[in-house]
Amino acid sequence: MKPFLAHPFDDDRLHEECGVFGVIGVSEAANFTALGLHALQHRGQEAGGIVSYDPELGFNSAHRFGYVRDNFTKQSLMETLPGMLAIGHVRYSTTGAKSPHIRDVQPFFGEFAMGGCAVAHNGNITNAEALRRELIERGSIFQSGSDSECIIHLMARSIQSNIPERMKDALRRVEGAFSVIAMTRTKLIGVRDPLGVRPLVIGKLGDGAFALSSETCGLDIIGAEFLREVEPGEMVVISKGRIESARPFAPRNARFCIFEHVYFSRPDSIIGGRSVYETRRQIGVELAREAPVEADLVCPVPDSGTPAAIGYAQESGIPYGMGIIRNQYVGRTFIEPTEQIRNMGVRLKLNVNRSLIAGKRVVLVDDSVVRGTTSLKIKDMVLDAGAREVHFRIASPPTAWPCFYGVDTPHRDKLLAARMTPEEMRDWMGVDSLAFVSLDGLYRAAGEAGGRKNSCPQYCDACFSGDYPVAPYDQVERGFEMKEGSETAPGFAAE
Amino acid sequence: MKPFLAHPFDDDRLHEECGVFGVIGVSEAANFTALGLHALQHRGQEAGGIVSYDPELGFNSAHRFGYVRDNFTKQSLMETLPGMLAIGHVRYSTTGAKSPHIRDVQPFFGEFAMGGCAVAHNGNITNAEALRRELIERGSIFQSGSDSECIIHLMARSIQSNIPERMKDALRRVEGAFSVIAMTRTKLIGVRDPLGVRPLVIGKLGDGAFALSSETCGLDIIGAEFLREVEPGEMVVISKGRIESARPFAPRNARFCIFEHVYFSRPDSIIGGRSVYETRRQIGVELAREAPVEADLVCPVPDSGTPAAIGYAQESGIPYGMGIIRNQYVGRTFIEPTEQIRNMGVRLKLNVNRSLIAGKRVVLVDDSVVRGTTSLKIKDMVLDAGAREVHFRIASPPTAWPCFYGVDTPHRDKLLAARMTPEEMRDWMGVDSLAFVSLDGLYRAAGEAGGRKNSCPQYCDACFSGDYPVAPYDQVERGFEMKEGSETAPGFAAE
Amino acid sequence: MKPFLAHPFDDDRLHEECGVFGVIGVSEAANFTALGLHALQHRGQEAGGIVSYDPELGFNSAHRFGYVRDNFTKQSLMETLPGMLAIGHVRYSTTGAKSPHIRDVQPFFGEFAMGGCAVAHNGNITNAEALRRELIERGSIFQSGSDSECIIHLMARSIQSNIPERMKDALRRVEGAFSVIAMTRTKLIGVRDPLGVRPLVIGKLGDGAFALSSETCGLDIIGAEFLREVEPGEMVVISKGRIESARPFAPRNARFCIFEHVYFSRPDSIIGGRSVYETRRQIGVELAREAPVEADLVCPVPDSGTPAAIGYAQESGIPYGMGIIRNQYVGRTFIEPTEQIRNMGVRLKLNVNRSLIAGKRVVLVDDSVVRGTTSLKIKDMVLDAGAREVHFRIASPPTAWPCFYGVDTPHRDKLLAARMTPEEMRDWMGVDSLAFVSLDGLYRAAGEAGGRKNSCPQYCDACFSGDYPVAPYDQVERGFEMKEGSETAPGFAAE
Amino acid sequence: MKPFLAHPFDDDRLHEECGVFGVIGVSEAANFTALGLHALQHRGQEAGGIVSYDPELGFNSAHRFGYVRDNFTKQSLMETLPGMLAIGHVRYSTTGAKSPHIRDVQPFFGEFAMGGCAVAHNGNITNAEALRRELIERGSIFQSGSDSECIIHLMARSIQSNIPERMKDALRRVEGAFSVIAMTRTKLIGVRDPLGVRPLVIGKLGDGAFALSSETCGLDIIGAEFLREVEPGEMVVISKGRIESARPFAPRNARFCIFEHVYFSRPDSIIGGRSVYETRRQIGVELAREAPVEADLVCPVPDSGTPAAIGYAQESGIPYGMGIIRNQYVGRTFIEPTEQIRNMGVRLKLNVNRSLIAGKRVVLVDDSVVRGTTSLKIKDMVLDAGAREVHFRIASPPTAWPCFYGVDTPHRDKLLAARMTPEEMRDWMGVDSLAFVSLDGLYRAAGEAGGRKNSCPQYCDACFSGDYPVAPYDQVERGFEMKEGSETAPGFAAE
Repeated sequence: MKPFLAHPFDDDRLHEECGVFGVIGVSEAANFTALGLHALQHRGQEAGGIVSYDPELGFNSAHRFGYVRDNFTKQSLMETLPGMLAIGHVRYSTTGAKSPHIRDVQPFFGEFAMGGCAVAHNGNITNAEALRRELIERGSIFQSGSDSECIIHLMARSIQSNIPERMKDALRRVEGAFSVIAMTRTKLIGVRDPLGVRPLVIGKLGDGAFALSSETCGLDIIGAEFLREVEPGEMVVISKGRIESARPFAPRNARFCIFEHVYFSRPDSIIGGRSVYETRRQIGVELAREAPVEADLVCPVPDSGTPAAIGYAQESGIPYGMGIIRNQYVGRTFIEPTEQIRNMGVRLKLNVNRSLIAGKRVVLVDDSVVRGTTSLKIKDMVLDAGAREVHFRIASPPTAWPCFYGVDTPHRDKLLAARMTPEEMRDWMGVDSLAFVSLDGLYRAAGEAGGRKNSCPQYCDACFSGDYPVAPYDQVERGFEMKEGSETAPGFAAE
Repeated sequence: MKPFLAHPFDDDRLHEECGVFGVIGVSEAANFTALGLHALQHRGQEAGGIVSYDPELGFNSAHRFGYVRDNFTKQSLMETLPGMLAIGHVRYSTTGAKSPHIRDVQPFFGEFAMGGCAVAHNGNITNAEALRRELIERGSIFQSGSDSECIIHLMARSIQSNIPERMKDALRRVEGAFSVIAMTRTKLIGVRDPLGVRPLVIGKLGDGAFALSSETCGLDIIGAEFLREVEPGEMVVISKGRIESARPFAPRNARFCIFEHVYFSRPDSIIGGRSVYETRRQIGVELAREAPVEADLVCPVPDSGTPAAIGYAQESGIPYGMGIIRNQYVGRTFIEPTEQIRNMGVRLKLNVNRSLIAGKRVVLVDDSVVRGTTSLKIKDMVLDAGAREVHFRIASPPTAWPCFYGVDTPHRDKLLAARMTPEEMRDWMGVDSLAFVSLDGLYRAAGEAGGRKNSCPQYCDACFSGDYPVAPYDQVERGFEMKEGSETAPGFAAE
Repeated sequence: MKPFLAHPFDDDRLHEECGVFGVIGVSEAANFTALGLHALQHRGQEAGGIVSYDPELGFNSAHRFGYVRDNFTKQSLMETLPGMLAIGHVRYSTTGAKSPHIRDVQPFFGEFAMGGCAVAHNGNITNAEALRRELIERGSIFQSGSDSECIIHLMARSIQSNIPERMKDALRRVEGAFSVIAMTRTKLIGVRDPLGVRPLVIGKLGDGAFALSSETCGLDIIGAEFLREVEPGEMVVISKGRIESARPFAPRNARFCIFEHVYFSRPDSIIGGRSVYETRRQIGVELAREAPVEADLVCPVPDSGTPAAIGYAQESGIPYGMGIIRNQYVGRTFIEPTEQIRNMGVRLKLNVNRSLIAGKRVVLVDDSVVRGTTSLKIKDMVLDAGAREVHFRIASPPTAWPCFYGVDTPHRDKLLAARMTPEEMRDWMGVDSLAFVSLDGLYRAAGEAGGRKNSCPQYCDACFSGDYPVAPYDQVERGFEMKEGSETAPGFAAE
Repeated sequence: MKPFLAHPFDDDRLHEECGVFGVIGVSEAANFTALGLHALQHRGQEAGGIVSYDPELGFNSAHRFGYVRDNFTKQSLMETLPGMLAIGHVRYSTTGAKSPHIRDVQPFFGEFAMGGCAVAHNGNITNAEALRRELIERGSIFQSGSDSECIIHLMARSIQSNIPERMKDALRRVEGAFSVIAMTRTKLIGVRDPLGVRPLVIGKLGDGAFALSSETCGLDIIGAEFLREVEPGEMVVISKGRIESARPFAPRNARFCIFEHVYFSRPDSIIGGRSVYETRRQIGVELAREAPVEADLVCPVPDSGTPAAIGYAQESGIPYGMGIIRNQYVGRTFIEPTEQIRNMGVRLKLNVNRSLIAGKRVVLVDDSVVRGTTSLKIKDMVLDAGAREVHFRIASPPTAWPCFYGVDTPHRDKLLAARMTPEEMRDWMGVDSLAFVSLDGLYRAAGEAGGRKNSCPQYCDACFSGDYPVAPYDQVERGFEMKEGSETAPGFAAE
């Protein structure tokens, strides 16, 4: 039976859609890949896949719904994935898919005249629909509903005689955000789009063995040394213990996703030379400066609000405490849940620590407000427990625009901040005060002491600003209205 | 295939063996029970069971391995458990069982001449083996390897004409720790042993509906009001909207398990009128007073060390930070794991936040030390990340004695504190300092301002002190050596 | 999910409820038992169980829904059943159970003071409800809804000091039909009730190894030599390479079930020294003599009508042909079938061989008529295919009474022959002629040249005659009306 | 876990590799398709798939390992396959695949510019490897290891503007044997190769609804009227209640597979206007004439030898009897079977009816001899049971050549008849006599009164004669040596 995916408490968060991992030069490469994917599980919990290559046994693959630890830790499965080269993928869901199909789970594989190739993609291709139409017109047969499948079909049709060159051909046709990992029989390949929207890092496992991972936490778990990031617009090809670097795209200013700092990435990862944890703690510090309040307790909304709450408490001097307790045994997937379970929502996951809260003026620190429904329920729980005042402090600016670069965002009219001012939101929530960190405050916390350069922003912050660094071609064709004054910037290939 | 239970990182914790929950007077009582058990999942993750009663459809039951949320949220299963009266149980494992059998999963059910009865038990019966031998001799057929099954067989053989009286007969024969929930066709019953070792609370759901739960967090999730605890030695019988109370046992001084405060119970539960969270935070305060140290950072070992770490940081003034990050996607059960997974241990679950730790003098706050293996690995991870000094602070006294009252403890010779002094432990761990909260400090944190009354301790602290409030009959018969000078106290029934 | 048992075409057959098998003195005794049960699968398809004993590893057991071949052929399962002594059971369903429970699947196991014992039962205990009430009154806890569980509880309460003597005690309290197989740590035990209603045979596997089996076909598959039947009223205890025989019951005239010859047993089994196949073929011969007809083709209703059809064709000289073809890929169990599947009935299983049937006068030979619904559909199919005339010949007398000795029969008012004369049945079916073999003809075919001795019948033929050799105590208490003039014969124990 | 396919008794038969079925114009078309596939299950037991189309819900599909009745009877699955148009496929195994992959299970689906198309294929494409190389060279990505996938890729690349024309383009490139069923959003399409090697028939379901099926038994089960066969070289396109016929290929003399008569097809199917049952019975008659013997009993080897045995008995006058009994509860697939099960072979399936056989001279009638191993074991069983003489009569000529047109045949050196003369086979088997029907006798039984026209055979009988009507291109390229004197006939397209 296909799992019915209920997200009783998670539909009020943005979700990263994918994590990618690959390794070359170690025995049982698939086992290492499984560990790396386990460390990247926060980037996608719905399904995962691994492809491995062994000179005698060829390419082998496995794709499964569910957590990495429930599937890719079993001896009987891992024995079917032999070899010293493997790549893998975890994903949240497919763009636009109503129900999950195992054939949508990456990596995708193609047999070319010069041998097989597997590809895994983190990000989103903004001209995927146009490319798909064109490829079908010419006789390609798509097996999935995934935008990422375009890449392997474009590669199959390239007239280049080796796979890295075919990949360059293919990615030059593709617009949007992509951190891609691929493998041939002998090579591990990593590419980031010219804006470098999604992360991708290189690790060294000693003696000619290397790994690629969406985040550094994937390197830590296998004991790999963090070498460097794959740079925006760079392609690395790793084989025979060497890393070769190429620059297949026209150069652009990088626009790394600032929401990776706010929420997506794990706090123990290092991005752009900065600790994600430290950035988040610093957002709390900025918030305490920008929006101080007299209160008795600073509480995080667990777990994502915790570092900012620590920062807020430290800067404000208000005591920090765990006023909301998270049930550790909550997962994301329910199979045919009862009505009662559907309606439980946030109470399945969170409970208030009554004796701590009662009678206090409480500052609740959360990472973001998307639909606002969770904030509303948490406020109710905290007031029911006897809090005297409730002050929400949000560790990101108002989320007013959807993301088209690999994040699962609700339609714009479901975003609270697209419909209300902060004051309206405060009234709607019924809290004593509500404040978001400013865009400049966020940039400062992320290491940009001068704040946002509005003429040329250092990050992609489209979800806050509506400034899309690449025009979302398919979306615009479907009628999405960009912010007034936006230039419908052409894609990379057009330059 | 039966799940192979690997506990790659959990075998260095003590484990509560059970949680119990029951509800009467609401439609879909089994659904409420499932929610209550979900909130009590930390008390037992291996398996769970629910029995319900409906006047037309009789008693129905379901027992499953795995989390409550993976089984008892499915409509198709819950529909098979109709009625306004239900009880349930989650468990860690059976005493002594090598491999799990579904027939060991409670509640147990017996059909008596006056109707059916289901029983669920949290605790451990210390004379279960002797009782089993006697019952078999007389013709009872045991279906499980569980000590708890004695209760229902003793009830079956009682000559009392109603079930509450049969239960009194049965429990007067039983020694050890027990919080028992039972149900007949019309009654919900709760009993605690005279020492009150394990918790059990009563909640009100409005209009004649009541719930029993191991902890108050089970009441919170269903929106029930916390009425009071079932008192040590009390039996409550709930039916027709009324609670009747009886005292079937000879009175004794209560000896509640102090480790429930330290680790077992959820921080948002209220025990003995005190917030568990607050007690834990206060242990940190005591520790900071008893064992101060110059340092740059106080880090909890997540998640159980967090409240004490907050207290330590607040009392010491040393900044609090998340130096160790927990992977949320770790479960307890692996089915036929690969060798590599078996060897990963704590790294599957925890990663160090390198940039925060590097160059700092770090105080690590953990709840307890059992075998010491986890502490050793965490110390290594923290030093590898560049910490300058590592100071362990433990929020409980040295755990030197096994528990025989419903906790899964290793054999005594596996307990680090049974073999080493704190100084030896510090050297063995290779840390700069190691300190445990004192027994008096622990009692103070738990609200006993005067500390432990050694002549008549207010809690059961046998795991720290070796003072067993009830002689563990079966264990002594098997050769367990009690602390010198211990009186082999007789069981309750003997009085 | 529990299998929903649809019997779209089988509810118009009587069903044997069980088969039993056991073996002692061979390595991997459980494997031999699985093979024996596979050969006995026609006696029960819903579920099966095996218990084995190994001196080091003790008793082990497995119970599964589904075919033997789908469960007990797997290495991973069979490895959990080590030892040189094993017994097993296949079953159709529990008396009275609405939905199947795995705990109803035999063998049942009890731990007694002198060691464990497993018991498997073929037949039906006609005073099981009375015994159950009595046992519960005295404190026994039943785990299943099965009548057979009485035996092990009676044994548990016996004051005899060894298991065979306890079994005698128990079985002397039991009325009805039983062929029981049991095992202790060292002994394999077989018993048949004094009437010998159900079969049970002994085989020799060479060198001190022996097997017990419901039918000889279970011996054939493991290559065992057929020694002899366990005699009615005999108990055999096999250990150390020896068979000891005892006679625990008062002697009675044997009354073997004649329907075993007609339908239940496999045609390749030998019963009472006679080939079941030959008896069935001979029934066809008797039918051809008793009810000749002018026709062009004799067709069996596959598969159970085949031997009688061969006999009819040979005696009548009318050509034999396969006018109805059976789909080999039909099983008994459907899980949540669609409406259309529910309504398909016999067409899922049978198809007419049109070119053979068209234009012919056809004699259809079937083993029995129960509800008559299948006969009606087959007649329709045969006429649709263009048959000129349809003549039904039934290889048993009209089935007018339910069986209470281990056969799943519909309530009496569902039996066509309880409501109609043969002429009425013929008209209701709409066939050109209908004839049943006479009771005397059946006895002659079964080797009783003189036919039925009405004063003292050689077989149990209650389903045809209403003469129940043991009063069905529980049924009579529930209001079942026996044939006028029936003596309500007392049970064995009463003698 | 992937099923381990053990064929303990079936590896000594040839196996049809596929059955196809489709229906248009009825509600719940997928349910009808499931029933049709159930009736065709003998043509492929490993896996099955169904694709349906509904104007609102689009194309939906399900592919499953195992029997149709175990998968495609479930309401929950069938609800996912709505619409009035559906096609399906059952298969034995993929050419050349070591282990089964669900992605190899047909129907295959492709989204073309003018809409989706699903294709299911019975037969074998003899130039599939060459076509695959060519398609990959041009950028097609294959998803399966199946030869049949070529068809949909060739269609995807056709420049025709509608799907039927694209299918013509594609099939003109394909060599070998194919009966293909396809569906678009509005059309049901059926095609047979010019030789008409595999069967395909058309049925009418009343009021504009039609079905296509490999055999007529698939029409019977859904109550459809058998209209006619799709003719060799014909394409039918059914929509809006009309059947359009086209002839896309150069005309050739038809060469229907004669082994369909001998073994593959169901006896209740009509092929070429003849009852398969009658042909088989007639083969028995021919055998009795060609190879008479004095004997006491004619026994079929069940179930495939039964019609020929009936014919042999009728022609010879020797009594017919069931000397070998088949266990109905044998399936084809075992998951990780024990060693003992692996070694049981034919005894899991067949048992001798000892009392019938003992002392008799027995004629055993079987359909074919492939490896000879089964015959050897059956002979041993029959002699062990006390037969006086054993005479094998085989209802087909010696099978001396592999089939390349959709049948799973062992390598030539595994075929007994490729290595031995009939006399050598008789000696090797150790039987008293052995005779095969002659090729002419077989043709006569199949309705060709004059026997085989050697210059221009009426059937494909390559497995007996080595005369391959289409050169097996891929096989020859791999080194297969055709019979001396064979013309390496060009494929269709080459003409």
